[in-house]
Amino acid sequence: MRARDLLAPFPILGLDAPVADAARLLARQALPGVIVLGDDGAPFTILPGTEVLRLAVPGYCQDDPALARVVDEAHADLFLRDLDGRTVREALPHRPRELPIADPGATVLEVAALMARTRSPLVAIVEDGRLLGAVTLQALLDRMLPA
Amino acid sequence: MRARDLLAPFPILGLDAPVADAARLLARQALPGVIVLGDDGAPFTILPGTEVLRLAVPGYCQDDPALARVVDEAHADLFLRDLDGRTVREALPHRPRELPIADPGATVLEVAALMARTRSPLVAIVEDGRLLGAVTLQALLDRMLPA
Repeated sequence: MRARDLLAPFPILGLDAPVADAARLLARQALPGVIVLGDDGAPFTILPGTEVLRLAVPGYCQDDPALARVVDEAHADLFLRDLDGRTVREALPHRPRELPIADPGATVLEVAALMARTRSPLVAIVEDGRLLGAVTLQALLDRMLPA
Repeated sequence: MRARDLLAPFPILGLDAPVADAARLLARQALPGVIVLGDDGAPFTILPGTEVLRLAVPGYCQDDPALARVVDEAHADLFLRDLDGRTVREALPHRPRELPIADPGATVLEVAALMARTRSPLVAIVEDGRLLGAVTLQALLDRMLPA
């Protein structure tokens, strides 16, 4: 079994898509993350769901949970609306990180090791710089576990 | 909106459950993670899906992707079977980590900040040491996003 046998089409976003669109994709389609294409059409980054949340939650609340606690309920309820038209490009952290990208010939063990190391339940499958689709943690486990 | 308003019942595992059962739960029920109860009945740890994979993928493959690549396809396909009867207790890393646990009165912003900080798409909601249920990233986004 190779990555190409576990491929599923996966919705993509451009760097100039609003962060709110990324959140909406995750929520409405029950996806484990989103793939962001760069200006050249190749995957620029892969954002697991919790990384999308990192784009949306104010930094001071992530650093210090006590600060999230002092925001009252009425305002807390609105934090996702504060995103306005903020784009993925604007919200992305500057620190580079290892991307969960594999080629279609990768074995399931390679894909699983990549998911484990990058903590991403989603691996983008790329050939010659072109996105072929994605392998999800769920698809991988589902196919690999003895029935 | 408070954590208690987003609660869903969540399957749990004991420390002596096989790691394979955790993987099976994720795959069959499309869960973002599993909650492991300790011997006292309180949550001992919360494992996002990628952490369950970390229990299953041999450490040398996680450290060095080149090593995963030299395992041939036939053996790679079987890595989940190698788990045998290995229990969650045996497989858990020894390093302590911050657990995504909140009380039922936490605001959505507190829950979101906790998911972002701990990179867990799943927060266990606990009151007086008792697990009430869990809030998932998807449930949170689904309820909080403007329609």
